[in-house]
Amino acid sequence: MVAPGPAAPPDTLRGRTYEVIFGHEPGPGRWFDAILILLILASVAVVMLDSVASFRERHADTLIAIEWGFTALFTAEYAVRIWCVRPVRAYTRSFYGIIDLLSILPTYLSLALPGGQYLAVIRVLRVIRVFRVFKLARFLGEASILSMALRNARYKIAVFIVTVVCIVIVVGSVMYLIEGAPAGFTSIPQGVYWSIVTLTTVGYGDIAPITPLGKTLAAFVMILGYGIIAVPTGIVTAEIAQLGAQGRSVRTCPSCEHVETDADARYCRFCAAALTERPARPGGP
Amino acid sequence: MVAPGPAAPPDTLRGRTYEVIFGHEPGPGRWFDAILILLILASVAVVMLDSVASFRERHADTLIAIEWGFTALFTAEYAVRIWCVRPVRAYTRSFYGIIDLLSILPTYLSLALPGGQYLAVIRVLRVIRVFRVFKLARFLGEASILSMALRNARYKIAVFIVTVVCIVIVVGSVMYLIEGAPAGFTSIPQGVYWSIVTLTTVGYGDIAPITPLGKTLAAFVMILGYGIIAVPTGIVTAEIAQLGAQGRSVRTCPSCEHVETDADARYCRFCAAALTERPARPGGP
Amino acid sequence: MVAPGPAAPPDTLRGRTYEVIFGHEPGPGRWFDAILILLILASVAVVMLDSVASFRERHADTLIAIEWGFTALFTAEYAVRIWCVRPVRAYTRSFYGIIDLLSILPTYLSLALPGGQYLAVIRVLRVIRVFRVFKLARFLGEASILSMALRNARYKIAVFIVTVVCIVIVVGSVMYLIEGAPAGFTSIPQGVYWSIVTLTTVGYGDIAPITPLGKTLAAFVMILGYGIIAVPTGIVTAEIAQLGAQGRSVRTCPSCEHVETDADARYCRFCAAALTERPARPGGP
Amino acid sequence: MVAPGPAAPPDTLRGRTYEVIFGHEPGPGRWFDAILILLILASVAVVMLDSVASFRERHADTLIAIEWGFTALFTAEYAVRIWCVRPVRAYTRSFYGIIDLLSILPTYLSLALPGGQYLAVIRVLRVIRVFRVFKLARFLGEASILSMALRNARYKIAVFIVTVVCIVIVVGSVMYLIEGAPAGFTSIPQGVYWSIVTLTTVGYGDIAPITPLGKTLAAFVMILGYGIIAVPTGIVTAEIAQLGAQGRSVRTCPSCEHVETDADARYCRFCAAALTERPARPGGP
Repeated sequence: MVAPGPAAPPDTLRGRTYEVIFGHEPGPGRWFDAILILLILASVAVVMLDSVASFRERHADTLIAIEWGFTALFTAEYAVRIWCVRPVRAYTRSFYGIIDLLSILPTYLSLALPGGQYLAVIRVLRVIRVFRVFKLARFLGEASILSMALRNARYKIAVFIVTVVCIVIVVGSVMYLIEGAPAGFTSIPQGVYWSIVTLTTVGYGDIAPITPLGKTLAAFVMILGYGIIAVPTGIVTAEIAQLGAQGRSVRTCPSCEHVETDADARYCRFCAAALTERPARPGGP
Repeated sequence: MVAPGPAAPPDTLRGRTYEVIFGHEPGPGRWFDAILILLILASVAVVMLDSVASFRERHADTLIAIEWGFTALFTAEYAVRIWCVRPVRAYTRSFYGIIDLLSILPTYLSLALPGGQYLAVIRVLRVIRVFRVFKLARFLGEASILSMALRNARYKIAVFIVTVVCIVIVVGSVMYLIEGAPAGFTSIPQGVYWSIVTLTTVGYGDIAPITPLGKTLAAFVMILGYGIIAVPTGIVTAEIAQLGAQGRSVRTCPSCEHVETDADARYCRFCAAALTERPARPGGP
Repeated sequence: MVAPGPAAPPDTLRGRTYEVIFGHEPGPGRWFDAILILLILASVAVVMLDSVASFRERHADTLIAIEWGFTALFTAEYAVRIWCVRPVRAYTRSFYGIIDLLSILPTYLSLALPGGQYLAVIRVLRVIRVFRVFKLARFLGEASILSMALRNARYKIAVFIVTVVCIVIVVGSVMYLIEGAPAGFTSIPQGVYWSIVTLTTVGYGDIAPITPLGKTLAAFVMILGYGIIAVPTGIVTAEIAQLGAQGRSVRTCPSCEHVETDADARYCRFCAAALTERPARPGGP
Repeated sequence: MVAPGPAAPPDTLRGRTYEVIFGHEPGPGRWFDAILILLILASVAVVMLDSVASFRERHADTLIAIEWGFTALFTAEYAVRIWCVRPVRAYTRSFYGIIDLLSILPTYLSLALPGGQYLAVIRVLRVIRVFRVFKLARFLGEASILSMALRNARYKIAVFIVTVVCIVIVVGSVMYLIEGAPAGFTSIPQGVYWSIVTLTTVGYGDIAPITPLGKTLAAFVMILGYGIIAVPTGIVTAEIAQLGAQGRSVRTCPSCEHVETDADARYCRFCAAALTERPARPGGP
């Protein structure tokens, strides 16, 4: 996939616009990012306030106006982004491009489907851009270590989740047979829901065993859950510790922002830009 | 114990059937596995839906028919497995053989004992076969690391569980004496149940202390539970990390699927088949 | 302190009794231990059943008789222990000696104080002897590693607990000011109790904030508790992992059962018995 | 910033007072600290008792008198501290100086604002001084390791918290759309509150899904929370383990009490006092 780039040379209006909108350098680009993040947070706050009945009744018109104002602004921003980036697909099909589109659709959707405007909270995901504004490389590096740890552990986690799913289905069914409707175990899916609530130690208490046999089984499930919670923690901790021991060499390509974790790599594997020699140690002094 | 094998040479119908039913090679064997897993999941879903009262009332006949259809299918599959494997005991007494039998019994049991058909959810355990279908060695290797970590930690875990059992019995009795029936502590077993619910941080709230003294003791138990939850996590994490540091050499015997974790082993300890030289590093790049 | 020893040579009745009661060798000594543990568990079960109202009403006389029978048996056992051990203090002041005495007192106490007999559940602590019966050294070694890990971490844990206590007092007071009596926050101690219930993620729900401001603060406390739970786990895990890396050399003195964790020690530091050369690696293959 | 020091030579009254109030040496300085901590704990207990309605009604006058007595005492102490330390700012702007001031304000505030006196529980923070009294260096060293581990992990934690905030906002909004007012999800902020209660496994049960779709989503959120709880634990554990492996060289400057964690440092980086050669290994044997 080709990395997104400017649609015109940097001395044209289109090129300068690209620098401001897509760039994160100190100056206009960073100011644009900072203002954008504030606008996103403000618009999410408005959507959340709009859902509070007492508030909506008193300020219905104002809230709708503000909401449409934000949507118009973000729609314009999306159009400008498409205008000044080439190839367009490289942006529209990227993670940020999809989130940007999903952020403006709910308000238009609310014209056909009342309540749809609340889906606009998805624009909170745009805030992830915040990592690109402040100390870019370090945050991306740390996020990369966390996601590498999770990726390395994916087979262990899959084994673990299949085990847990089998446990909750069997336990939920047995509890349904033992307790039945009086204790709230009205069906097997209900019993499975209870198993998950108990095994994860959430424990709402809306469904709880009342017979001695049910309580005994529940006690075993809780102690089991107590032990089981140790397993994912152990998996993730071991991976993070091992990645830490490997030197935690994480660098970001100065050209395409690809995150390189191979300490011996000298060139970016996507755009062949030279990587800086001494990798910055994230989280270091 | 002798490993299960085909009952006839591979060029006969019986031999080919063995390959398809017991084999996991790409081709008919893998297709069989994939379809079987879908059927298992579908039959578990039917059993769960059957327990939902509103659903059962409307579709009682359909559900019973489908359920008997699945049971007939799995019974036939069990018969064919016995027909084409030798020695028969090697299959019927293996983990999968027992689960396969337990999966078909509940429906027949329901003729004598109403409600017994819900035990059929145990067939969800057959889904564990899924690990044999996709990337066999890697999943078995990871499962093996997790179970080795738990096995290495078994003495520590035994010490831990005996300690926890002593704590919950003593705490439950003291709370029974302090709080008594008004707060729901109607007996010592009830108090022990409350201790387990609290120590594991599940906290249903169906039983909760109401006197100042009881609340003070409960607060100490919670902080204790907070600290105690750290112990099994610490045990499991340390074991997983240590196994990881030992190179995580996990190989699967190409002949009998025994999982070998000794990095220096050159031959399978059960069937003497040569093991591949370079062990695949599970979870690696 | 002098280690407890037999009161007479092994060829006298008194000496043989000592071997049977205090020894854990295969033969009479181990049979005695096994039967004792079963009796202890049975007597704890009787105490627990005695507290169940419906059961007590029907079987009051039987339960009282059984309970006094167990107490007479344990009193006799305590007397025999004192008779055949010298110096007597070495036993009566040891951990097991104190537990043995506390186990028989509650039944006598119940003559003066109704309900006192339920304190007899403390005899469940006598079950800890189980570790001495089966594979003695290994269990004591693992218990020793766990308690060493906790001892090494004691300063970190003290810092952590003081921090948590300060947080729950300040948060509980602020919630009392915000929420007040309507939400169940009737006093500061009540607020502190709620803080502990929330921070430890137990969450009974008997007291819960109802105002938006209170809910916002509660949300922060929960996320804080989420992070704080990581600290004791991290402390304990790091200690266990470090002890594991140091070779986990744990040996038990063949003479006085002192647990030695210094890998270089050649003689028991209490009775100067020679320690076995190659320390058994607990949890090893 | 200049370290606080005595306002006069040690042979004057003012100099001796400084030694007693600010010093922690065995003798008068340590006695002063011990008495101060007891007074602080007593005054916090009085504030907490004062908030219990039944207690306040019976002993209103006594409680007010005691409370004003403590406040007068702490005000005098604050004045004396200012009198005998130079430069004054080095004390008043330090952590302890600010806490000391905040500890006496709430009682005066209660004259204007009823209920304000309960804020006096903030004086529990003064108890942190306890670490300075007993085994100073060791506790500060351990606290320093914990805070270093948290500081090293700050970027990972920031990434984690932003992720969690995005999840709870999106999940809370979707649950609001699915469940609505009947289940207690009266607005998006209410849904976000429920998300946090569930994801952190607190689970009050005051708001809980009632529709099958809502319960299914809730089950996914719980399993997600189960996995997510592993991440901060993994981060903190890995940092603590790494700091432990680096030798845990933590020394406290004998002159200004700066905590030095660089094992090769020979002089205090703030006051140039020579550091002791062999660093004490905290948590060591």
